[in-house]
Amino acid sequence: MSELFLRTLRDDPADAEVPSHKLLIRAGYVRPVGPGLYSWLPLGLKVLRKIEHIVRSEMDAIGGQEILFPALLPRAPYETTNRWTEYGDTLFRLQDRRDNDYLLGPTHEEMFTLTVKGEYSSYKDFPLRLYQIQNKYRDEARPRAGILRGREFLMKDSYSFDVDDDGLKNAYHAHREAYQRIFDRLKVRYVIVSAVSGAMGGSASEEFLAESEVGEDTFVRCAQSGYAANVEAVVTTAPDPIPLDGLPEAVVYDTPDTPTIATLVDWANTADLPSFAGRAVTAADTLKNVLLKVREPGGDWELLAIGVPGDREVDDKRLGAALDPAEYAMADDADFAAHPFLKKGYIGPKALLANGVRYLVDPRVVDGTAWITGADETGRHVVDLVAGRDFTPDGTIEAAEVREGDPSPDGAGPLVAARGIEIGHVFQLGRKYADAFNADVLGENGKPVRLTMGSYGIGVSRLVAVIAEQHHDELGLRWPGSVAPFAVHVVIANKDAEARAGATELATALDRAGADVLLDDRTASPGVKFKDAELLGVPWIVVVGRGWADGVVELRDRFSGEKREIPVGPDTTAAEQILAAITG
Amino acid sequence: MSELFLRTLRDDPADAEVPSHKLLIRAGYVRPVGPGLYSWLPLGLKVLRKIEHIVRSEMDAIGGQEILFPALLPRAPYETTNRWTEYGDTLFRLQDRRDNDYLLGPTHEEMFTLTVKGEYSSYKDFPLRLYQIQNKYRDEARPRAGILRGREFLMKDSYSFDVDDDGLKNAYHAHREAYQRIFDRLKVRYVIVSAVSGAMGGSASEEFLAESEVGEDTFVRCAQSGYAANVEAVVTTAPDPIPLDGLPEAVVYDTPDTPTIATLVDWANTADLPSFAGRAVTAADTLKNVLLKVREPGGDWELLAIGVPGDREVDDKRLGAALDPAEYAMADDADFAAHPFLKKGYIGPKALLANGVRYLVDPRVVDGTAWITGADETGRHVVDLVAGRDFTPDGTIEAAEVREGDPSPDGAGPLVAARGIEIGHVFQLGRKYADAFNADVLGENGKPVRLTMGSYGIGVSRLVAVIAEQHHDELGLRWPGSVAPFAVHVVIANKDAEARAGATELATALDRAGADVLLDDRTASPGVKFKDAELLGVPWIVVVGRGWADGVVELRDRFSGEKREIPVGPDTTAAEQILAAITG
Repeated sequence: MSELFLRTLRDDPADAEVPSHKLLIRAGYVRPVGPGLYSWLPLGLKVLRKIEHIVRSEMDAIGGQEILFPALLPRAPYETTNRWTEYGDTLFRLQDRRDNDYLLGPTHEEMFTLTVKGEYSSYKDFPLRLYQIQNKYRDEARPRAGILRGREFLMKDSYSFDVDDDGLKNAYHAHREAYQRIFDRLKVRYVIVSAVSGAMGGSASEEFLAESEVGEDTFVRCAQSGYAANVEAVVTTAPDPIPLDGLPEAVVYDTPDTPTIATLVDWANTADLPSFAGRAVTAADTLKNVLLKVREPGGDWELLAIGVPGDREVDDKRLGAALDPAEYAMADDADFAAHPFLKKGYIGPKALLANGVRYLVDPRVVDGTAWITGADETGRHVVDLVAGRDFTPDGTIEAAEVREGDPSPDGAGPLVAARGIEIGHVFQLGRKYADAFNADVLGENGKPVRLTMGSYGIGVSRLVAVIAEQHHDELGLRWPGSVAPFAVHVVIANKDAEARAGATELATALDRAGADVLLDDRTASPGVKFKDAELLGVPWIVVVGRGWADGVVELRDRFSGEKREIPVGPDTTAAEQILAAITG
Repeated sequence: MSELFLRTLRDDPADAEVPSHKLLIRAGYVRPVGPGLYSWLPLGLKVLRKIEHIVRSEMDAIGGQEILFPALLPRAPYETTNRWTEYGDTLFRLQDRRDNDYLLGPTHEEMFTLTVKGEYSSYKDFPLRLYQIQNKYRDEARPRAGILRGREFLMKDSYSFDVDDDGLKNAYHAHREAYQRIFDRLKVRYVIVSAVSGAMGGSASEEFLAESEVGEDTFVRCAQSGYAANVEAVVTTAPDPIPLDGLPEAVVYDTPDTPTIATLVDWANTADLPSFAGRAVTAADTLKNVLLKVREPGGDWELLAIGVPGDREVDDKRLGAALDPAEYAMADDADFAAHPFLKKGYIGPKALLANGVRYLVDPRVVDGTAWITGADETGRHVVDLVAGRDFTPDGTIEAAEVREGDPSPDGAGPLVAARGIEIGHVFQLGRKYADAFNADVLGENGKPVRLTMGSYGIGVSRLVAVIAEQHHDELGLRWPGSVAPFAVHVVIANKDAEARAGATELATALDRAGADVLLDDRTASPGVKFKDAELLGVPWIVVVGRGWADGVVELRDRFSGEKREIPVGPDTTAAEQILAAITG
């Protein structure tokens, strides 16, 4: 440590919000260079490389072949797939000296597809699994939390290529299992969540989320069944339809000054409505119609109305996922002005449907449900408007927010919310990219067959922060052995020359036996050294201290805090015992 | 090989000019992605990683500590050192979503200096040697020759930090020796050349050039002494001055239509000049005055005239190095028009000096040398104009071309020209960057001391091409064992099921014994397989062919072409013998 390029900091950096960020800076693992840009100092780089090694070994184990693309890429292939535009501000774009357009790769689907198309031509060449471990670039709107969300970050991205759906499924499951092994080896606590709704094909896309309170991703899970999903992927449990016979007639009321759900509910509870005799009206009895405009890629803006129970907001993420790849925006005053049948605050299903505005409703709006909703006149609402009798929407949409307590789609129990950090993603891309580049090979029957692809990512540099986030205490980091920068941290806490020499000898013996050893040979006080050892988080700390005179050193387990004395023999007995302890 | 992501090509790619480029593409090591941008396929990546490993091990051996910076860097530090501007079109610049300026790092002096300044504060912390192995970016005007000159390339850059000049010298020599070990291990034939002239401080900068006919760098060497230098660094051997007494008087002649050296020499040889009685006039007897304009950084354009013997051109590289950091351009018609005393084609020293134009001459223009040169009137020249008598230049400049046969600066013999590829550079930067960032630490005497730096680079990805350039024949690549993608290439050249099984078993035995084995288990013909094996260039080829029935396999040395038979035992004898051959 007297030579190691390392200076620990006593105080948390001012701009650091999350524990991993604070600790990785304080312990001298990384340093900021600019927003979302970090340099890796020796200890940080060691951890990064160990993670990389584990990822590589598991990719190789499932037949992955490593290749490496440039990070600087020409525009054309990304233009073909429209990602040049779709990525928006998140893509770093630049020009060379001849004014040709380039980008810094966010992921490499295009390049892999083109390369495989260029090299292979027959079904016999498949299955194929390729991967790279490479710097990726994304101009995040809010780079945050240190290396948890950087703008230059190390990623492992794999791509599978198959000639049929069974091949793709095999590749998908092989990656899924490899990812489980990787995260297990890294000692990361994680859940696998569905990333798209069942409507799009079940397990076609799953995310690996590290459980963490500081995570940006919200997901829901069911304690009873283990079901877990991104909110985008949750399928609403719809009630059974209600027979229409005998339901009360719809009645329009004057409801002055009730442009919001709250004011409407207040009115309803004082209006003495016959169909609510004996019970209070709640927001869930109202149907809120939200007016948007939507544009399919290459198309024009069109109006779209979404009806959701008044007690739920429209969730941006769920709405975006449901409408993808179309873009959308809230309707503005000009849209209302252009369509005078739309009465702001009083929009009802009838005017929408009568005037040809596409109208999608929450899956809870099943036939026979009765709603208090807009009557398409300012200051008027309709009560007991029954779906399937008084209006028939154009379809359903998964856009309403998911809440804790909502039933799990598998029927096993209520959902609870949790936060996580995305550390991996497995995705059955199918033929999207192969279609874009006409990636065909000769099939078994002599006819061309289009390739089908999967893409699979792991955030390698992010994992350093994720592991730090999950494995630390108030004193510092606590690395799992598989990724720790060193296996043993020998602290000289005795100024005696003989103890010093003995510690050095012990460190040498451990090193010779194959253990990665960090020796704190600095002249600092024992207190400073202990603090640093706790901060750095090497799993095993050997203290050569006062006990040296009595023939013992102390072995501390950084994780459990347990301490034990190891007798120092004239030979390498102490080293052997320490090795036995740390490998056992 | 039936599963390896590899397709070899029969024909040279259309745009490839140099052997390494052709072979690395044909053998499926790399693929072009754009101008100066290449992807590494599995075999290429293996070679790249082996080189990286050797570089890393030798850097670690001299106490280098590895860290890693982003490639995407903020503008400010490069603005401080002026490199943001100085790099010109070679720097890739871009903006983020907030319109902040960034660059893709060409080298990282700024970042290392700032980082060391940030972490260390005392002379006790030094010496310090840091390095990284990282992608660098340069927008080359003419990316060429495949990965020999790419725009994204892998480089090892080290930086040494010391508090005194002795420390810097130690670091410099440690790196110089490490580089020698690295290139020796890689089996690269190279020379170390002085990169700046002795005037700037002797060995302050040296380049490692791989000997290669396709190299872009020209250097000169002396067979007698081993002296080698870039042309920029060659110091002209000046003749002794000649006593002025008794030299003929200068005489002005009418020399109509002699604006060039050739026409002037023709005139002189018909003019019956007294001082050339009995010998022919040559271009070396004339003094050519070249008019430039020069601008120091931050300054204005000023005229500069350079006088060189008429038989030599002004060498752009030498002129640039001599004038650095000033920029320069040839004087144009407007400059001549603005200074009517300058007669194009007839410029002489007298008008230059009389009108205050700075006038530097080649070191060969010593006192007492007599010249035929312009008389500052159109159609007139002066003969026997003597330096030190008739004109006194403002100084000398190393701008004239260096030619084969010129004397070596060390006096040992004539220089011969050779071409090379820059593979490494060691450079005593001194305090340039420390001055820019005020990088001081507390000295032993309690006063601040400014750090002194060295920078040391190795072109890691370029070395793949350099080794291919130096180690190939007409059939393909011939990798040295230290960097070969595989140690042994086992070719199944016998359709017999038993031979096939035996070959597979042999490959497994070799693999188990620790040798990296490539097994050609494809159904292709033996001819195709042999051609591929020669093209791929694995050092040892084991052929399981017709001899199998007689109990032998063939071991071929790809480098020497030597073949020998190895008896196949019932156990692993063949594997043992092969291992003995390839490791011995």
